[in-house]
Formats: sequence, structure tokens, C-alpha cells
Amino acid sequence: MFISTQLKKGRLYVMVIVMKHNSGEKEIKEVTRVLEQLGLGVHISKGTERTIIGVIGDKRVLCGVPLELMPGVEKLVPIVESYKLAGRTFKPEPSVIDVKGVKIGGKELVIMAGPCSVESREQILEAARAAKKSGAQFLRGGAFKPRTSPYAFQGLEEEGLKLMQEAKEETGLLIISEVTSERTVEIADKYVDMFQIGARNVQNFQLLREVGKSQKPVLFKRGPSTTIDEWLNAAEYIMSEGNYNVVLCERGIRTFETATRNTLDISAVPVVKSLSHLPIIVDPSHAAGKSQYVLPLSKAAIAAGADGLIIEMHPNPRCALSDAAQQLTPEEFDNLCKDISKIAKIIEREFKYGG
Amino acid sequence: MFISTQLKKGRLYVMVIVMKHNSGEKEIKEVTRVLEQLGLGVHISKGTERTIIGVIGDKRVLCGVPLELMPGVEKLVPIVESYKLAGRTFKPEPSVIDVKGVKIGGKELVIMAGPCSVESREQILEAARAAKKSGAQFLRGGAFKPRTSPYAFQGLEEEGLKLMQEAKEETGLLIISEVTSERTVEIADKYVDMFQIGARNVQNFQLLREVGKSQKPVLFKRGPSTTIDEWLNAAEYIMSEGNYNVVLCERGIRTFETATRNTLDISAVPVVKSLSHLPIIVDPSHAAGKSQYVLPLSKAAIAAGADGLIIEMHPNPRCALSDAAQQLTPEEFDNLCKDISKIAKIIEREFKYGG
Amino acid sequence: MFISTQLKKGRLYVMVIVMKHNSGEKEIKEVTRVLEQLGLGVHISKGTERTIIGVIGDKRVLCGVPLELMPGVEKLVPIVESYKLAGRTFKPEPSVIDVKGVKIGGKELVIMAGPCSVESREQILEAARAAKKSGAQFLRGGAFKPRTSPYAFQGLEEEGLKLMQEAKEETGLLIISEVTSERTVEIADKYVDMFQIGARNVQNFQLLREVGKSQKPVLFKRGPSTTIDEWLNAAEYIMSEGNYNVVLCERGIRTFETATRNTLDISAVPVVKSLSHLPIIVDPSHAAGKSQYVLPLSKAAIAAGADGLIIEMHPNPRCALSDAAQQLTPEEFDNLCKDISKIAKIIEREFKYGG
Amino acid sequence: MFISTQLKKGRLYVMVIVMKHNSGEKEIKEVTRVLEQLGLGVHISKGTERTIIGVIGDKRVLCGVPLELMPGVEKLVPIVESYKLAGRTFKPEPSVIDVKGVKIGGKELVIMAGPCSVESREQILEAARAAKKSGAQFLRGGAFKPRTSPYAFQGLEEEGLKLMQEAKEETGLLIISEVTSERTVEIADKYVDMFQIGARNVQNFQLLREVGKSQKPVLFKRGPSTTIDEWLNAAEYIMSEGNYNVVLCERGIRTFETATRNTLDISAVPVVKSLSHLPIIVDPSHAAGKSQYVLPLSKAAIAAGADGLIIEMHPNPRCALSDAAQQLTPEEFDNLCKDISKIAKIIEREFKYGG
Repeated sequence: MFISTQLKKGRLYVMVIVMKHNSGEKEIKEVTRVLEQLGLGVHISKGTERTIIGVIGDKRVLCGVPLELMPGVEKLVPIVESYKLAGRTFKPEPSVIDVKGVKIGGKELVIMAGPCSVESREQILEAARAAKKSGAQFLRGGAFKPRTSPYAFQGLEEEGLKLMQEAKEETGLLIISEVTSERTVEIADKYVDMFQIGARNVQNFQLLREVGKSQKPVLFKRGPSTTIDEWLNAAEYIMSEGNYNVVLCERGIRTFETATRNTLDISAVPVVKSLSHLPIIVDPSHAAGKSQYVLPLSKAAIAAGADGLIIEMHPNPRCALSDAAQQLTPEEFDNLCKDISKIAKIIEREFKYGG
Repeated sequence: MFISTQLKKGRLYVMVIVMKHNSGEKEIKEVTRVLEQLGLGVHISKGTERTIIGVIGDKRVLCGVPLELMPGVEKLVPIVESYKLAGRTFKPEPSVIDVKGVKIGGKELVIMAGPCSVESREQILEAARAAKKSGAQFLRGGAFKPRTSPYAFQGLEEEGLKLMQEAKEETGLLIISEVTSERTVEIADKYVDMFQIGARNVQNFQLLREVGKSQKPVLFKRGPSTTIDEWLNAAEYIMSEGNYNVVLCERGIRTFETATRNTLDISAVPVVKSLSHLPIIVDPSHAAGKSQYVLPLSKAAIAAGADGLIIEMHPNPRCALSDAAQQLTPEEFDNLCKDISKIAKIIEREFKYGG
Repeated sequence: MFISTQLKKGRLYVMVIVMKHNSGEKEIKEVTRVLEQLGLGVHISKGTERTIIGVIGDKRVLCGVPLELMPGVEKLVPIVESYKLAGRTFKPEPSVIDVKGVKIGGKELVIMAGPCSVESREQILEAARAAKKSGAQFLRGGAFKPRTSPYAFQGLEEEGLKLMQEAKEETGLLIISEVTSERTVEIADKYVDMFQIGARNVQNFQLLREVGKSQKPVLFKRGPSTTIDEWLNAAEYIMSEGNYNVVLCERGIRTFETATRNTLDISAVPVVKSLSHLPIIVDPSHAAGKSQYVLPLSKAAIAAGADGLIIEMHPNPRCALSDAAQQLTPEEFDNLCKDISKIAKIIEREFKYGG
Repeated sequence: MFISTQLKKGRLYVMVIVMKHNSGEKEIKEVTRVLEQLGLGVHISKGTERTIIGVIGDKRVLCGVPLELMPGVEKLVPIVESYKLAGRTFKPEPSVIDVKGVKIGGKELVIMAGPCSVESREQILEAARAAKKSGAQFLRGGAFKPRTSPYAFQGLEEEGLKLMQEAKEETGLLIISEVTSERTVEIADKYVDMFQIGARNVQNFQLLREVGKSQKPVLFKRGPSTTIDEWLNAAEYIMSEGNYNVVLCERGIRTFETATRNTLDISAVPVVKSLSHLPIIVDPSHAAGKSQYVLPLSKAAIAAGADGLIIEMHPNPRCALSDAAQQLTPEEFDNLCKDISKIAKIIEREFKYGG
């Protein structure tokens, strides 16, 4: 891969070209043409006032081009933050990630729902129907389960993904499932519409590079003890391989408090929004660890500006093979969707309750 | 004080009497009469289905009374949680704390606003007018400031409280200010409508007992490393002295994350609501430490079910003598109140923007 | 008090005068004479290479004196850290705190031992004899107990201190006990040789100022979520009132780990030694919360450079009214002292096992 | 692999057979013979009082054998902890891991030293000579570096391992280096004597299973926010694949304190010793993040009972390409080894300073 090779040789450089506010389409096109001819990566961000062109490439090539003298160019700004492609400097306006027509980070809120683990055909189909009925756009479900103990249920693996695909065919929901290694990326790629990287793998850089080589969107969860800065740097591992379709997911951090499984860092929503252009959704189920707190945390997340939610919901939570305490019933999930649709209007977002 | 003396002798007992669901006013009155005659503390909670009578008193007295045989009594339930008066078992329905007509914990949301420290007559009057204009019910302002360094500004002390009183007379706002010791409780008592106990004093038990001896309402902040369980136990120190007018305030806990001053534990709102009957408000200013995050966190708090907010607002934040980075301007505060009033409606609460 | 008044008016200034390395006694005396005549506080630190004179006082007075022109003066250095008197800049060489002949911070290691709470005459006498027999220099014991729940045993109060005094008379041990408020400082002052400020009161600034007004040595525990920087600033509250006899005590911080009650921050020992001149001892009992871990943690603390230990030991831990799980038996404590005396030699310290 | 297959099918069962204390070699052999004939895994632990036989295998096979009736058998005890092979119940006496003749967990302390990253032939050879000279048994050095930012130096990869091998041939030191994925395990396997799993991969279960399929010893670091319980469960992932040669390494956990990079959880040493039979060493370099604190933390670790240390040492720390602030100079490392050899004697361990 282009970027990855240059990274290894330590020659990669990322900067932005700020265009003059009166520069026109012609100047932008000319700068772009020159950059592309040199084999450099180009990203154009058209703001309300001026256009910014992000440039990625070989330091030695960039050095030889007198870009600052080209018509319409105001100045060149190198990116000094350790994360570059994920930052607001490189791309000032928010990114909208398109997953087969469902847009994450736009006006519409996105809800992903489904059981912690795919357990059986009946279970996943029932969950999918309930998710669809209330308005969710994605079906979630774990097929490769990273569990604290090797003796705990580890998931149905490829069989689970096939069942999800069946649910997708019936309901039209997009599907998302966790990948945990090169091998599981390869298998999941055949079934899922979006990869999920779980909290435990937030700094499994080999895995991040792997999904970075794909163009398939990635839902990238924060680790329970990852700072926001480290998380954005980890996202950069995916993006620096060429996959810009990254959606962040806050899912609670580890603190001394024991009343909840983790502590939902609600502030991460506005903090990420100010540092990065990537969309961010919230997983209240893992943060709380108890189903009774999922509804208030979901409302809080949306009110704080999150672009969506990922919710654990199970046709029969008491019988769940994993995370039984935190999964909603279909009824509870339906109420949640109804409430979210009401809040959405107030904050100038949208969510179609009932699909 | 009655309870305190019994506590020392280790004889205090707290239990609830669950009345039969068909028991009437007559039976309740009779049980109450007997308990009061014996010098026991009585708290009646009338629920939609049945009435619960909380009883506090000397273990030896209680042992001698065959309460379970009285007409209308279904059963006696001892309270085994380490906090008793603060818990839901003792009082199943939510408490509403009345501060001179402003009710905290009811349908109406309560907003307290004002500068970190009272700095001058002009500053506090200006802040009060802005608070009033946008709809706040309380003026906050620090007169006795506990600061990390002894060389930092320590507050105007009694002079500051007098200035707050002047602001109160002009605007009609209620006033709240922090107390830090027996001496400051005594002084503040002359001026404030509600005491505030700050995060650093959450386990200053001597101070808690002191405000417990008063009947003046207390805003009781969580410490940055206090578990919710410890916090409710600390509230019990106030309540066991006889002051039941306690409002809890979540203000962020200490974690490894450095992007914010503290991590707002938004989950504390539903957790406290499920464990305790006490109202809970949120302080997003200290949690975030940066004014730009105060608005999204405020919305999140209200959406999660908080009964109100306490917001740092300064006529000129850049010149503030303390916590400059986290105080809102009057304009920002006004926008916040407007947004809160919109969310309030959706969640069946009320807030009169513009007062 | 002198400093406290100046602090309030915001005029306090702390700086050091670095003397030339060939300056003699005469020059030092002359500088000192001038400073004292002006009513300024003076602290002389004679190092192996040069002498440093710490100066505290009214900014306006200091401004008028051309100190840099006096013979033997090399330069004036203002102290910019937020803690001044507690820092290494003000006093480069380590402080040794003398408690009635027992020196804390010198070559000899100091061990304080005794029960969590004073419970009875027999219990405290037995504990004192065991402590003395193994070589401890101090008897510890709680008389005013700050407990998480108001319903837990709160200590024997003054009666407990009287029993400790009796134990002191019999064994010759010095006594140390916790104070929690102005009132308890007043009472304890009559009995104890050293005040203890507990973790919960680390930022109870009123209490810190109170013990700062005394000259009695203070053992000052870190709070479970206090950074080292905040802790040294809190120590400054005591010192800025004039009491320089402060000994720090690391007792574990609050983290997500639940295998121990708190996490002993062993690094705090070398960190404090590099930032401050104050002695530091370690409390492994509260950090671990389980008696089986006290011995290895004690050895670690001494090996890391701590100046001593404070250990919970009870004649009969199983029957203890508080902290039963973490108190050593007299036999376990005796083994600990034996092991510490061996390690002491290796690291050029001393501890007389067996007294 | 045997165990792994059974795990997937959920049939794996682990228990211990406690032999009567007067049972002899003959009874033990007979029980063992029966178990092995049935294809079950057997681990014999001969204690001073009685022998314990650990048994792993297919639940259905085990159910059919009346083991409790065999001569010499006292009772069968199922293992209920979530980690089984890593726990003390399964194997009461401490494990000693033999790495080509160097024993970790025995009387002798083991020191691993070397630079954070292998940077050049000269650098690694110089580091190796210094490590050897002071008595270290292992050379450490990063070839595959997982770095927070993708733009930071990522290591020399296989080239680095070849340089380490050259250093090994010259000095006779064993070599250890981090692996981060299936591919790097495969490459490193050709060069290293011991795999290292870094903190970021503590719950990269795929990687753990991968090194579990080898018989090569593994140094397994704790994650910065992993509880000890989770860490032992993660070790179980390696062991349940058949590789019992696991050495644990405490390297600091993430807390709110910022004076050090992480907070060394020194209590983890005695806690792990009480819960598990696996050896544990300490990495003070990553915990402290500053070279000045490495010596006191190293002494503390050994005094607390650690079986060894892993120390970052660089011929010229100021020029290091990674972790410059925390690497010792060869002289500082030499002093550390000298001090450790002195402490070793006191606590009945051994370390040959100077090799």
C-alpha cells in the first residue's frame, strides 16, 4: 500500500493548503492537478468561507514543488498533531460516512441494535425484526466474541455471520459485526457491511492496518483506558492505510466507580467533535452494564451531539449467553427509539421511529 | 440532637412499616400516633398502591412494641443498606426539596448560575441580572473559596456574601454559596438560602454534621473520587442529624483522561435516582473545565433525568480570578437556558426560559 | 498569624538567595541580619557547595532592599512552583522532623504501630507493649474515627486518647492520633505527640490551617485521589501558617483494581523525595486492605526509600471493631520489624529491631 | 490443538485430585496411568504434605471414571475460578520456567535489559555487552514496535532481530522481543528465546492463542487498565492452548496521577503470588517513565518478592528513537545490578552481580 510503504521509510508528510477566500474553482483544480500528477494524495474541503486542500505524500516530492507560489494559494500549513488525517486541521468540516446509502454523521441519527452474540437462527431473526420495526438501520451481533475467559462462549463464528446475512435478506438492515484478527477480517468481509473493532483491540495496530487496507467502513470503539488522544492516533492507523471510512464509538472508560460496568465518558462526544471530523456514536449498553440505565444514557448521548447509538437488544435477555444484564427487550428498545425520535427534532436531527 | 445522641450510643434503628394495600387513613393514623407517643421519628410515604411508614428511633423502644399486630400493618422491614434515610427503601417516592418556594426534584427544572467567585459588587450584580433574565432561580457565587494552593485567591468571605444579598434583593434570586467549616456555616447562615458543600469536603464528616443540625437546604457535591455508595453514606451524615433537605450534585470524577478537567459521570444521574429518593442536579462547568463543553453536557444531563444544573457564568470570563476557562458568558448562558427549555418539554419537565 | 494575614492580602512572596560558593559565615550573617530586621522570615540551608537562604515576607518590603548587591550574594531566585515552602527549591536538603527526640527523615527508620481504633484499655495496652517490644517508636490508634457510614463505630473520642496516654506512660512510646476538626485538634493537643490528618481531610483547608497554627508535628496522609502536586500544595497550607513539622504519608490511591483496597503508589516515595524536602512514610495497611500483603509492601516501601512505616496491628485482629481484615497480629508485626531491620542495613538506614 | 478443540465444543473440564497424605508413589502412578490412558491431561504437584493431581479433559470422559474410589484418592475438587490452569488450586507450588537453562521463578533473580528499540548494530551490541557485564541474563530490544502514532518509529523488524541474534552470539545472553501478530510470531520464532506480549495486546486473544500453540516461554505484560483477575484469565488463553511457560510482568497501570507515566502497582506482586503459581517480574521503566525513578522502583519490586526485572537501558539514552526519558545509561544499570544483588541476599534470593 502506498502510504504504509512511505510510513515505513519515514518520509510521509501531511499538510494543508489554505486557498485564498476569493480563489475559484479554476485555481483549486489547477493545484489539485499538479498534486495528483506528482502522485500525492489530495482531499478537498470546501468550507463556507474558503477551500482547504489536504495533501499527503512523500516529503521529498513535496519539497520540490513551489506550491505557495501557485495562483489562489494563501498558505501552506504542516500538521503538527500526532494524528493528522483524523484531525480537524486536515479536514475542517465534519465527515459523513456512507454505508450503502445509510449516512453516519449527517442529519439523520443512526441506530444499530441486536444481541451481544448471535446465538441461533431464531434469536437473530427475531432481534432483526424487532430492530427493523422500531427504526434501526443496522443489525449488530457478535460472531467472533473476545471474552475475558477462554472458557466462556466464544461465538458461532462464520455460522453466526451467515445467520446475520439471512436476517439482512429478510429485513433489509445493514449488518455490523466485530473482527478480531486478520483471519476474521477475511471471513467477515464476505458478510458484513461495516466492520467493528472492539475496545480490547483499540491498540492492536496490526488489526487496524488490516481493516485500513479495505474500503469497508469501520466502527472503531474506544478502549476502556484509552485517552481520546490515543484513540484518535489509533484511528490514524486505519486512515493512514487509506481507509477514511471510520466512525468512532464511545463505550465507557474504566474508573473506580462500581455501580456501573464502566463510566460512560459523555464528554468524549463534544471533545471528539472539536478535535476530529469523524462521526461518533455511543454504546450505552457496555458503558452501563445494566439495562435499566440504557435509556437515560441514550438520551444523554443524543442530547450531547452523538451521531447515533449502538444498543444491545435480545428477544429474551434473561437467556442470553453473554452480557445478559445489559441487553434490552424488544419493547424497551422500541420505547428508546420513540424517545430518541422526539429528542432528535429538538436538536435539529432526525430519526424515523418505526423505520 | 436526638438522632446524633442515639447514634453515639449505637442504639439507632431504622425500619419501614409496609401497610396493607387496603389499609385506610384510620389505620395509618393509629400507627403514627403510637410511634410518636413513643418518641420515634416517623415518615409517611403514600404510594399509588400502598403506604410505607419509615420509623427511626431507639432500638430498645422499638423492640417492645408489637407493631406487626396492629390493624392495617402488613410487615416490618429493617433497612440493611449502610445508608438508610437516603435510600429508596425508607422513602420509595422521590423527594422534592422546597427552597423558599422553589421546588427541586419536582416537574420544574432548577438552574443555579453565577461566577466561580464573588469578586466585586459590579461583577456579582451583573451576573445576577443575567442569571435572572435567562430564567435561573438561584444565584451561585463563592465567598469562601477552597483553593488548591494557599497562595491563590481565597474569596471575599463575608463581604462576598453581603454583595450576594444585595444581588438577591435586586433580582429576587435565591442565593447559594459554599461553606467549608463550622465558622463559615455560622456566617453563611445569615445570608444564603441554601448551603453548598464542595467536592473536597464530601467526607468532612464534622462539617456534614454541622449543616445537618440546621434545617436549611444543602446542595451536596460528590467528591472527585467518591463512589456513589460512599456519597450516599456521606449524605446520611447530614440526614441522620435531622436535616432531610439534601440535594445531590454530580460534578465529575477523577480519571486518567486529560482532555477534560474531570469526567462527568452522567450515569450517576440514573444510578442515584434508582438508589435514592433525593434530587440530583449536575455541574457541567467543573466536570468539563472548558466552557465550550458546558452546553452539550448540560443538555445531556437534563436528557438523562437530572433535576437541574449549576452553571458557572461570569460577566467577563477572561478576567475571572478563578476558573476562567470554564465560565460561560451571559450570552452563552442565555442560549443554554433556551435549549434546556426546549428539551424540558420533550421529557415532560418544565423550565421557563426568560424567567 | 503573620504569614496567614499577608496571604489574605495577597502580598506574600517567597524566594531564595543563592550565596556565592566562596561566601563565608560573615556574609551569611549580614544578609540574615538585614532580612530579620525587616521582619522577613529566613531559612538557611547549608549545602556541601553553597548556602541558600530562603526568604518569606511582604512583597513591598522585599522590593525595597537591594539584596543582590550585598557581599556574598550570587543571585535571587523567586519560587514559581505553586507550593513554595514544601519544595526543594526553597530548601534543597532533606528535612528531619524531631518529635521529642525521635527523628523522622534521618538515618533511622521510624515505625508507628497500633490498632485502627482504640477500643479498650486492655486492647491498647497490649498493642502498645507489642509495638514497643518489636522496636516501634510510635503508638498509633484512632480515637476520632471518620467512617464511611454514620452508623459505624465512631471511636472512643477523648476517652480513647486518655487510654493511649496511659499506654505511653507504661511503654515510653510516642503517640499519634487522627484529628478531624478544630474541636478535635483542641482535645488531641493535650494528649498526642503528633497529629495525624487522614486521607479524607487532605483538602480540608480549614483543618490544615488549624494544625498549621500549632508547632506540633503533623503526619499528613495523601488523599485517595489527590495528585502529588495537589498534596504538596495542601501541605503548603499547613506550612504557610508557620508549622514546618510536616511528615507526608502515602497510603494508596483509588484505581480500578479491586484485588486490594487501594493501589499503593510506591512511586510517590521517590517522586516526593525529588520534589520536596519533607520526609515521607508509607501506610501499607490501608493501601492493601488485607493483612497478608502488608509485609511485602512494607519491605518495598523501605527499599524504595521511605523514611518509615505506619502499620495497623491489633492484639486480636478478628475481633477488631474496624478494618479487621488489614490489621497484623503482634507476631506478624514482630516479623515485619525483623525483616525491616535487615533491609535497613543494606540501604544505609537503621532500625533497631527489638527496640 | 487438543484443548482448544474441546474448548470450542464447551466440554473442557479442569479439576484436581487431592491424594491422601499417606498415599505413596504407587497410588499416584496408578491414578496417573488411568488418566493418561483416557487421553486426559495430567499435572502432578508434590507438596510437603500431600500430592495434588491436576486433570484437564473432556467432561464426558471424566464423568465415566470412578476416580474417587481409587486407592490413595482423598477427594476430587472442581476448579470454579474462571482461570484454572493459571491458578493456585490447580498447582499449589510456584512454577519455575526454564528458558534454556535460565530459571525464572526459582531462587535466582532474573534481569532482562536492553534498549526500548533495536536501532543499529553498534547500539544493540554495546547494550548487550553492558547488560552482560553487570549480570543480566537476557537482552531485550524491540524489533516490532507498537507505537501510539503510526508516524512514530515502528522498529527495524526482522533486521532488528538479526542484530539481536548477533549480540546473543557474542555475549551468550538469551534474547527476548515483542510479538504483535501471527506474522511477527512466525518471524520472531526463528530468533528469540522468549516471546514478549506487550501491554496493548493483553487481550488480543488471537495473538495469545498463537503463542499458546508454541512451547516457547512467553513474558506476558499486564495491560494499563487490566485488573489482575482479567490478566490471569488472559494468561489462561495462552495456557489453555498447551503452553504453560508463562511469566507475568507488572508494568504500571493507568491512574489519574501524572508525575509518573503509569502507576506501578507494586501490590500486584504479592497478589499474583497468592492467586497464581506463575512467576512475576516487574518493568519499572515503563511504569515510571523517568529514568531517575527506575532504581528505587527496582529495589521495591525485588523487596516485594518479584522474580526479576526488565529494564530499559541504552548506550546513549538521549539519542534513543523511542522512550528516551526512561532508559538508563550502562553505568546507572550497573549500579542497579549491584544494589539488587545486595537486597537479594537479605530476602534469600540470589543475583550474581557482574555475571
